[in-house]
Amino acid sequence: MVGKAMTGDRASIEALIFDAYGTLFDTHSVVAALESDFPGRGEYLTQLWRLKQLEYSWLRTAGEDYQDFAEVTRAALRYSLATLGLPADGEQVKKLAAAYDRLTLYPDVLSALDSLAGRRLAIFSNGSPDMLKALTMNAGVIDRFETLISVDAARAFKPSPKAYQLACDRLGLRPNQVLLVSSNGFDLQGAGRFGLRTVRIERFKGENLRDRLGQGSIDVSAMFLALRSQVECMEPAPEVTIDTLLELERALVQVETS
Amino acid sequence: MVGKAMTGDRASIEALIFDAYGTLFDTHSVVAALESDFPGRGEYLTQLWRLKQLEYSWLRTAGEDYQDFAEVTRAALRYSLATLGLPADGEQVKKLAAAYDRLTLYPDVLSALDSLAGRRLAIFSNGSPDMLKALTMNAGVIDRFETLISVDAARAFKPSPKAYQLACDRLGLRPNQVLLVSSNGFDLQGAGRFGLRTVRIERFKGENLRDRLGQGSIDVSAMFLALRSQVECMEPAPEVTIDTLLELERALVQVETS
Repeated sequence: MVGKAMTGDRASIEALIFDAYGTLFDTHSVVAALESDFPGRGEYLTQLWRLKQLEYSWLRTAGEDYQDFAEVTRAALRYSLATLGLPADGEQVKKLAAAYDRLTLYPDVLSALDSLAGRRLAIFSNGSPDMLKALTMNAGVIDRFETLISVDAARAFKPSPKAYQLACDRLGLRPNQVLLVSSNGFDLQGAGRFGLRTVRIERFKGENLRDRLGQGSIDVSAMFLALRSQVECMEPAPEVTIDTLLELERALVQVETS
Repeated sequence: MVGKAMTGDRASIEALIFDAYGTLFDTHSVVAALESDFPGRGEYLTQLWRLKQLEYSWLRTAGEDYQDFAEVTRAALRYSLATLGLPADGEQVKKLAAAYDRLTLYPDVLSALDSLAGRRLAIFSNGSPDMLKALTMNAGVIDRFETLISVDAARAFKPSPKAYQLACDRLGLRPNQVLLVSSNGFDLQGAGRFGLRTVRIERFKGENLRDRLGQGSIDVSAMFLALRSQVECMEPAPEVTIDTLLELERALVQVETS
């Protein structure tokens, strides 16, 4: 172990940082609010909105044209509504966007956090500080985390190195002392490339995706999953993949001894 | 007109730069090669590949992790095949990716280029220098352009300001002397923000999209169009929108006198 430590690229994990959207919180839970306002369109709008929200986060980072995630989220919703020719005034967009502050937790989250008691835990997310505060307060988990780290202070979204640097700075740790838990392929790749340790939570399994894609015509939900649920073909790959956050403790040992 | 010129943000257009993929060349034309190798999967793979190709270009720019568009194109194809559990060896990926060198021209391109004879015309694209050379040679239009400007030398994809700066440098012009013609919303937005003049070619009309989305279940082609064919909800908007490149001369007058 001494030998390993001396290589400099392995260290004990001093903090776990959790991606929020899609990892701890189910972004699909906005569907009810959309379906209520736009009957028959909820599923389509939910998927397009999320895809466009991520797109805009990447475009604003690549374009060196930062606006915070609340604005990005509203713009992505306006775009999505416009594809259907649906008018949406500022008030309605604001009301619907607030659904992103009330996302439901995935069912494994609370038990997993319990099992990690005593460890340094933080959220690390594209969400603006206000969004992250509302999200974790509404879900009753704000006290489970030492801190909520928004990329906002770096004025760059994931996978910008600026965002991962910010997370390390906030925690006072080196990248290889920090473990990112995320379901998002681009996040895992960016973090891994920056030097963070990575565990992928596979929220939708590849074999289930292949079943979905095999059943005749491919609907918007399957297309969303095809785009977002799989490991990216960009190096590096996540170090460990788990099926449920309840496997995190085991994964942690695996990462630390790898 | 003197007064306008003195404001500094209006100038005569000294060169037109054309986006390649989706603007002059139809990226959908890879469908035959995919369908031939993977019967029944051509349409799905065509749409996912293009979406992922753009995603990877943004992620590599946002992540400060540049690789050229040939590599991005191959990685996006590997990802797309993997969603179906399809193995693809390096040779097959290379062969299929070569379909991007043989894209068909949209039917309005040649006449439009004829009508612009005497003007400075260039291609300005994410494509690597080799890809752009092969693409324009295979289509027989390489001699129609003064130069093929690849973002590669800037080591950043659209909409990075570095890419638009490179285009201006290559042409020896100020941003407001250069007109970008593109169908890609993110390209138009990035260019407009950098100070280029912009004309949008609407390759798929919003009303047709709404018809497509209105017909029951939404297939992969409609989802692709929903994501990619509409104006982005990011400022600035394109200055002029046209239905066919044959309207370019008129649009040029409109831009110059606006």
